[in-house]
Amino acid sequence: MTYKQYYVFLIALTVFLASPVFANGETVRFDAENKLYRPEGWRQWVFIGAQVTPNDMNGGQAYLPEFHYVYIDPVSFEQWKKTGAFRNGATFVKELLSVGSKEGMTGNGYFPGEFIGLEVSHKDTNRFPDNPGGWAFFSYGKPPYGEISADLKGDGELDCGGCHARGAEDWVFTEYYAILNEERP
Amino acid sequence: MTYKQYYVFLIALTVFLASPVFANGETVRFDAENKLYRPEGWRQWVFIGAQVTPNDMNGGQAYLPEFHYVYIDPVSFEQWKKTGAFRNGATFVKELLSVGSKEGMTGNGYFPGEFIGLEVSHKDTNRFPDNPGGWAFFSYGKPPYGEISADLKGDGELDCGGCHARGAEDWVFTEYYAILNEERP
Repeated sequence: MTYKQYYVFLIALTVFLASPVFANGETVRFDAENKLYRPEGWRQWVFIGAQVTPNDMNGGQAYLPEFHYVYIDPVSFEQWKKTGAFRNGATFVKELLSVGSKEGMTGNGYFPGEFIGLEVSHKDTNRFPDNPGGWAFFSYGKPPYGEISADLKGDGELDCGGCHARGAEDWVFTEYYAILNEERP
Repeated sequence: MTYKQYYVFLIALTVFLASPVFANGETVRFDAENKLYRPEGWRQWVFIGAQVTPNDMNGGQAYLPEFHYVYIDPVSFEQWKKTGAFRNGATFVKELLSVGSKEGMTGNGYFPGEFIGLEVSHKDTNRFPDNPGGWAFFSYGKPPYGEISADLKGDGELDCGGCHARGAEDWVFTEYYAILNEERP
């Protein structure tokens, strides 16, 4: 085995261990009540974008405080590159971080601090036939994150689905994800 | 081949194609003058953090305008998890994005727009023995990015190294990278 093969094997093994794909080809799994187990290895999924909606720009009461790091599962990213659409089974993770600092060596801005929350959206028109677009939304609270989701519903005006219905495409704010836009077929 | 094996193979193949590792185990390659070829597949490297230092928080003249998405090469990430240090060969990519919007469904904030720049730091105390910490800094300009780097030096007070010397660890601003901090051994 050459060095090259060894490193490729190492990386492939890491991806495999970090991002298990279950026997049905899914990257996440549900319990019998359609609660979603916390995804594994999401920080090595495909990062698609970050935003910051800090408390100090929202009267001290941001709806989703501070930084968001957003990822898509790697199987759905491959599908997106081929089809420009989100497959049944598409899963997005949004991890929230506090603002750690507003001043750095390169000037004033927003710099991330600690992880403060984990939320997931998942599309499956078969599993969630009554949810608009088949999208369901889940939360794992603050660290240490829960093993199993609290359902955030997905169909009300004041919960996730209410805003996400106004995303540019299929309940997703693709307008903020330059990486998805560049990979659009 | 089961579905699971198929998808793992697909993902491993994607990582391989997106992030080639060269015969010497390196994730990047240089020309004879130590100019660095633009890394391949950096958006599927390991994302470690994002910051925003927008023009409108810096008198209209930000030193590094707007959003930064920062990645580390996957081989060096594996090394960091084992050692808590950056190996010779460690490569960071910082991609710059414009501010696309300051108002979204979840409130006021900074939302990314388009890619506007690509910069890389690379540590190698053998290749760059005269650079502090062995770090060299490179730029690929604005899109479409160059194939080969413009050297940003790395040892002056007003260029990359001048600020990076003040990063928390080894010329890296690890204080902003919660993902690295969580994976510290």
